[in-house]
Amino acid sequence: MSETSGRFAHRTADAVVTLTRDGEPLAGREVVVEQTRHRFLFGCIGFDLIDHANGTAADPARAQRDAELWEGVFNFATLPFYWGRFEPERGKPDTERLLQAAKWFADRGHPVKGHPLAWHTVTADWLLDLDNEEIARAQVDRILRDASDFAGVIDMWDVINEVVIMPIFDKYDNGITRLCRDIGRIPMVRLVFDAAREANPNAVLLLNDFDMSAAYECLIEGVLEAGIKIDVLGLQSHMHQGYWGEEKTEAILDRFSRYGLPIHFTETTLLSGEIMPPHIEDLNDYQVDSWPSTPEGEARQADEIERHYRTLLAHPSVEAVTYWGMCDAGMWLGAPGGLVRADGTPKPSYERLHHLVNTEWGTPPTTVATDADGRLRLTGFLGDYRITHEGRTAEFTLDASGEAAVAAELR
Amino acid sequence: MSETSGRFAHRTADAVVTLTRDGEPLAGREVVVEQTRHRFLFGCIGFDLIDHANGTAADPARAQRDAELWEGVFNFATLPFYWGRFEPERGKPDTERLLQAAKWFADRGHPVKGHPLAWHTVTADWLLDLDNEEIARAQVDRILRDASDFAGVIDMWDVINEVVIMPIFDKYDNGITRLCRDIGRIPMVRLVFDAAREANPNAVLLLNDFDMSAAYECLIEGVLEAGIKIDVLGLQSHMHQGYWGEEKTEAILDRFSRYGLPIHFTETTLLSGEIMPPHIEDLNDYQVDSWPSTPEGEARQADEIERHYRTLLAHPSVEAVTYWGMCDAGMWLGAPGGLVRADGTPKPSYERLHHLVNTEWGTPPTTVATDADGRLRLTGFLGDYRITHEGRTAEFTLDASGEAAVAAELR
Repeated sequence: MSETSGRFAHRTADAVVTLTRDGEPLAGREVVVEQTRHRFLFGCIGFDLIDHANGTAADPARAQRDAELWEGVFNFATLPFYWGRFEPERGKPDTERLLQAAKWFADRGHPVKGHPLAWHTVTADWLLDLDNEEIARAQVDRILRDASDFAGVIDMWDVINEVVIMPIFDKYDNGITRLCRDIGRIPMVRLVFDAAREANPNAVLLLNDFDMSAAYECLIEGVLEAGIKIDVLGLQSHMHQGYWGEEKTEAILDRFSRYGLPIHFTETTLLSGEIMPPHIEDLNDYQVDSWPSTPEGEARQADEIERHYRTLLAHPSVEAVTYWGMCDAGMWLGAPGGLVRADGTPKPSYERLHHLVNTEWGTPPTTVATDADGRLRLTGFLGDYRITHEGRTAEFTLDASGEAAVAAELR
Repeated sequence: MSETSGRFAHRTADAVVTLTRDGEPLAGREVVVEQTRHRFLFGCIGFDLIDHANGTAADPARAQRDAELWEGVFNFATLPFYWGRFEPERGKPDTERLLQAAKWFADRGHPVKGHPLAWHTVTADWLLDLDNEEIARAQVDRILRDASDFAGVIDMWDVINEVVIMPIFDKYDNGITRLCRDIGRIPMVRLVFDAAREANPNAVLLLNDFDMSAAYECLIEGVLEAGIKIDVLGLQSHMHQGYWGEEKTEAILDRFSRYGLPIHFTETTLLSGEIMPPHIEDLNDYQVDSWPSTPEGEARQADEIERHYRTLLAHPSVEAVTYWGMCDAGMWLGAPGGLVRADGTPKPSYERLHHLVNTEWGTPPTTVATDADGRLRLTGFLGDYRITHEGRTAEFTLDASGEAAVAAELR
């Protein structure tokens, strides 16, 4: 792991682990050490596993395989809270099913983020029957209810999505655009963040946008100047029109890291098929009958995913990357953006990311010997580790980069 | 003037003028009425007339003709205060020459705007020798000095220019970008507006930008939420890459009028020659040896200027349009954007705008008869009027749209 001392130094620790058994140093013995969890959030949407988590999958065997593939790479889930689908009929939210899904991830140790609490797209149609004051009240109530109902299971929210375009969105009439145009972007952000903070003071709250231009910078600066506390900046990176490349990605990281806030790449897509033509401005306008994954596309996608993740992990502000869909089946726009084909077989991109996460950046089970004082040396990515020896296990965590001295007791 | 009751109703008054001589109604007489000044600001840069105003023009006869052409259409001047040219050597500002020029316009009744007090482009090179705190101090001092020195002559300023791009401007290193990147856009706006307001509390202060995207909206919203008082929003409209058309212009007006602030179109250019290719992102990157004005281009320019001005005047928020250069000679980028050719002859666009301003929207000297009570009826654009009769004159002003009753005494 030559990069641990270089561009990934901020992600790794050089640890001296003192291993004990029954309180005594375990001197001169071979043990097996492995990383069990990355501190970095390798995220993916968990939409496809909601049925599996609820025991309602149409094909339970396939769902089980998908779940295993998911957990083979990812440790952080995003679940859907699009208002129009979550509460199509006012007063009848889809809470139980989503809570079951969120618990499935949380019980396995994977933090869960809800996406989004406020957005003009896929919002509730019944808002159109309300005046703006009533829309604001309904929006606040929805946040108070959902952020409370899920607290302790979901403690991270994309509070509001795509505010830059929100008040000037002109594809169709909707209640959230009406409200945002009326009260302005910053009061809109304040309204929804205040509600989310009130409902779950322990939650990590994100502002999320696809607009990587100066517009999002200006919005962020206005929001921060207005005294609204943002915990994390969410940057989307749907690359249906082609991989950004390192230079553009690094320039974006440079601009958005100026605010001293953690950055999540919240929505990442790279295609293993044809690239969407550059003249399409709203990706939703691109409708094709068939958009196949191709061998050439799959090779390219694997390379681009590796380049993208390497670039992001190299920047100290980035704490999470969420891939926007593990499987091609049911993907947004029908695009071949998954890491797994529609038939359930992994693409090269899955294998590549699996290797990066678990082998190159992770520590797979590795036999090492302790010295005369029971010590072993380990350089690894931050996160949780386990040592096994003669049926016993010891656990420890590397939680800060640089030199570390850690004690671990076999139990 | 069919449009006075329609799309330009907000610009016009239906007045009943009661005309008296020696205190008695002037009944049943023919008089001549004319508009002497538009309330709407038909602006142009006055850069080319600085030498004329200072008596230092290389060709005084040509300068005199240019001055007459200028005053034939325009009633509002913008003068240059680019820091790098105004004060190339620290402590030696070009105050006297600019003050003379500003007075030349002001003495003729034309309000003058200074452009700009803060901008990253053409800023003072000597800022590069200072640290950011010193740059901030120098910027404030410059504003305090210049806004004070010119108060009473220049009471309108483009306080800060192009803030959207200011902190991420990457063409070359400069002190203002350094400072803005360091402190953020909104504190930068506050810094310069506070200084300008302090130096001249009576001045009209503008925020000005070329960025017509949501970025400028977000900036404006952040600035207003931060409690910074902006008097007027400045929107540039350099159309070197082609006329925007009514639809785009109206959409921009719709978006930027949401803030309830007056709008000035601060920098308007339309070409009478070839259009710059659309792939040029920074207009400054387009360098050509020769960029001639052509007969076809001149016909097109005249039509587009008429369409642009009609669209702008139809929107009630617009209070000024400044054309960015009367004459092709010395124009930015060498573009044929003037209303007058390099040889001093007016293009069709000049004649067109002259007709619109003075005849269609103005009231040229017109003979009308007073009734038995000394009254005459007049529908005209807001502004100043003069009535002449037998060597005497009466003056009055139409200062609000709609019905008006006005008294005027011949003196």
